[in-house]
Amino acid sequence: MTTTETSPASTEVRRRASEAERAFSVTAASSPETRVAWLQAVADALDAHADELVAVADRETALGAGRLRGEVARTTGQLRLFADVVTEGSYLEAVIDHAVPSAAPPRPDLRRMLRPIGPVAVFAASNFPFAFSVAGGDTASALAVGCPVIVKAHPGHPELSRRTGSLVASALRGAGAPGGVFALVEGYEAGPALVDDPAIRAVAFTGSLAGGRALHDRAARRPSPIPFFGELGSLNPVVVTPGADAATGARLAEELAGSFQLGAGQFCTKPGVVFVPEGSVLEEALPQHVGGGAAALLTPSIATGFDEGVRRLAATEGVSVVAGRLDALGPDAVADEGARPVVLAVDASTLAERPDDILTEVFGPVTVLVRYTGDAGGDDLTHALDALEGSLTATLHAAPGEPVEPVLRRLETLAGRVLFEGWPTGVAVNWAQHHGGPWPATTSAHTSVGATAVRRFLRPIAYQSAPAGSLPEALRDDNPLRIPRRVDGELVLP
Amino acid sequence: MTTTETSPASTEVRRRASEAERAFSVTAASSPETRVAWLQAVADALDAHADELVAVADRETALGAGRLRGEVARTTGQLRLFADVVTEGSYLEAVIDHAVPSAAPPRPDLRRMLRPIGPVAVFAASNFPFAFSVAGGDTASALAVGCPVIVKAHPGHPELSRRTGSLVASALRGAGAPGGVFALVEGYEAGPALVDDPAIRAVAFTGSLAGGRALHDRAARRPSPIPFFGELGSLNPVVVTPGADAATGARLAEELAGSFQLGAGQFCTKPGVVFVPEGSVLEEALPQHVGGGAAALLTPSIATGFDEGVRRLAATEGVSVVAGRLDALGPDAVADEGARPVVLAVDASTLAERPDDILTEVFGPVTVLVRYTGDAGGDDLTHALDALEGSLTATLHAAPGEPVEPVLRRLETLAGRVLFEGWPTGVAVNWAQHHGGPWPATTSAHTSVGATAVRRFLRPIAYQSAPAGSLPEALRDDNPLRIPRRVDGELVLP
Repeated sequence: MTTTETSPASTEVRRRASEAERAFSVTAASSPETRVAWLQAVADALDAHADELVAVADRETALGAGRLRGEVARTTGQLRLFADVVTEGSYLEAVIDHAVPSAAPPRPDLRRMLRPIGPVAVFAASNFPFAFSVAGGDTASALAVGCPVIVKAHPGHPELSRRTGSLVASALRGAGAPGGVFALVEGYEAGPALVDDPAIRAVAFTGSLAGGRALHDRAARRPSPIPFFGELGSLNPVVVTPGADAATGARLAEELAGSFQLGAGQFCTKPGVVFVPEGSVLEEALPQHVGGGAAALLTPSIATGFDEGVRRLAATEGVSVVAGRLDALGPDAVADEGARPVVLAVDASTLAERPDDILTEVFGPVTVLVRYTGDAGGDDLTHALDALEGSLTATLHAAPGEPVEPVLRRLETLAGRVLFEGWPTGVAVNWAQHHGGPWPATTSAHTSVGATAVRRFLRPIAYQSAPAGSLPEALRDDNPLRIPRRVDGELVLP
Repeated sequence: MTTTETSPASTEVRRRASEAERAFSVTAASSPETRVAWLQAVADALDAHADELVAVADRETALGAGRLRGEVARTTGQLRLFADVVTEGSYLEAVIDHAVPSAAPPRPDLRRMLRPIGPVAVFAASNFPFAFSVAGGDTASALAVGCPVIVKAHPGHPELSRRTGSLVASALRGAGAPGGVFALVEGYEAGPALVDDPAIRAVAFTGSLAGGRALHDRAARRPSPIPFFGELGSLNPVVVTPGADAATGARLAEELAGSFQLGAGQFCTKPGVVFVPEGSVLEEALPQHVGGGAAALLTPSIATGFDEGVRRLAATEGVSVVAGRLDALGPDAVADEGARPVVLAVDASTLAERPDDILTEVFGPVTVLVRYTGDAGGDDLTHALDALEGSLTATLHAAPGEPVEPVLRRLETLAGRVLFEGWPTGVAVNWAQHHGGPWPATTSAHTSVGATAVRRFLRPIAYQSAPAGSLPEALRDDNPLRIPRRVDGELVLP
């Protein structure tokens, strides 16, 4: 364990965490309308400065102005979705059980709702400099429910982080939010200091398996452990059945090429392993869609990881190169010139024998085709799927009428989102979204994208025999917030 | 870390866990009606054998036939409540967002619901040999949602555990549940083996802070960490304001005496620390209600813990004995003759200075009065409350019209259930209950008692662009289960 008690970073974290704790006494008692105003002010500020922010982001991430502009819109849309969630009020899970004096034993009046958990630490990700960064989903959902936020900036886009942070802070101040409700900290040492700080009540992290595991373990080791909501890595398996390959293999090849190269392959939902029938149309058609120029990766360590990862994969016995050229690799080449896309292939039986060598996520434009024999319910594919760990997504391409139940049941155990006839790289921000999955995809059953993301930062409190004047508004008999509630066992709409 | 790989206990656990994993493929696909039938069969079997079970339980726990009979009723009522929860269907949190092809980017059809997490390990508690043991809340809620259960029996009531286990297994078999859906394992070594087993997807534990912390850390250390739902210890602070003491101190004394001595003080919700005004009516009236015979404690280690804990507390500088006699203590006396109730007292300023010496939960019939000066919003009480860790409950006794907001806000941060004018030892099993609280009360925001307890053993899955035939019934457009759902953002009742 690193001792950070006396470093400048940990002093700064302690100061910010104390301010957040003081702010919590105000934010915990804030009304929904108040928090809606905060979220809207932040969204408006980002929209108003989109041009400037996109320019800074493109300079620091090379993700391209078009993609980044769309990401700003997604980010402000996300803030506004959480405003809707807070206004609608179901997220409070309000439940009222009136007293039953005649029961044996007599039942007291009992009312339950969700309340904010306290100050939250958010670790920004490199690959979505808006949507998973300073003003991203975790920040939005924490503020939405009344939790102060301290963001640990990602070093991949420092200027953007500071500029966004300053816009967020000023928008919140302008909307009347208390000081301490939002802060940005920087530097490697700030991370462990945040996870250790006694005022921090939950941690949200999106990043690498190694870094996330270290912080997860650290959160669990605290004298008072706190929830760690981590998104750590995902292979996003895709299964193409023989029927789908025969009917649409050429189109699927083109779509797969688009999906795994999107954003230079730096999506958490990139399809990293694609199960195809032996001798597939898809495999034959894929190379013509793979190539083009080299793309700059987000950070030097991602470039190094891509170079090492692809070379390690390609050196594994039984793995061959289907598209792209290994001679374009080398740490200097990737860091200086960018990453060129690569497609590898391996037999399902080899994967089942050596899963650890093959099933390690490599960030960047690379995917692995896994060739299986027999049909989609056969032993060869089944054994290969059994070797997979959890993922954010799992995708099935099947022809109409093909029997897919067994493979679908398996995909459901592997992932938090199961797709049919599509590709995982688009993540809609709406009420039904779930962005999460079994370890190592995420460390918890709460999503980081979509309306239910607020659940990360809430905890239930039940009030027993409370006088009306001491009840939160959400639990008063006259339902002043006009929210859906469960009353004496019945769900009641306002 | 104990190596258990080759012990008989770990072999047995591995075998049971494999069976549970196989059963999961059946239980995960089971209909609500099917699982309702399982729960009702278990409840009926326990009710039918209540006399026999109570006799065995009383022999092993000395909790008394009256209390135990009530606990059987609570336990079977709990199984039937979960049957209602499953039938009602809101617990699935079904959400449907239809496709919006005109959106930019186009939005796919996306449908989210909660699905069972997989095989669950349940550690039985000593103090509720029915309600928190073999067929207790965690077993009921896991079975309710389709998770196979392996119970680690508590050594405090082995014969009862086996008999209950055999009734549960036979009732489930009779109701058509698959083999492997339920198993009972025994012995110390089975515990860590269960937490380590790769087939186990969640752990539920009710017990001591030391034991729970060890298992919590073990679950977090796994190659694939799993959620650990632990209930580890709770002081259940009670605050009596000057107004409440003046108006009702004598009655409160009698009620407190009843609450802290209930079940020989072996409730997780026992009021263990009671804040009273200096020179309170309550303190003066309390001794006359404390006493009577010695009560046998549940296990030798609880007896030892009570003896050591009370002597340690009483030896702390500034702590005095208000009721009961220390000369009734001694390890042999408590183990052989039982525990006699003790009330200690200390000043709030002393507590604020030495919280660690005083604020350690002692299981058994002991409580600590903490005398504060000034009113309920004053510094003396506030500083003392600041020294408290999380609890399952926090209770406020105030007179009508007394200003209690500051102390109430503090109690909300400390506990998962806030009571007014009552005592925490009764825990209603209903829709609104929350039995949980900040560390060390529990390790998670999901309750172990009440309708929402099922949330422990569920995880979300979103289905994107799924053909109707591949959707779970809960997500089909025609809503065959007739459950409440959110459709395109609107909560819709069936």
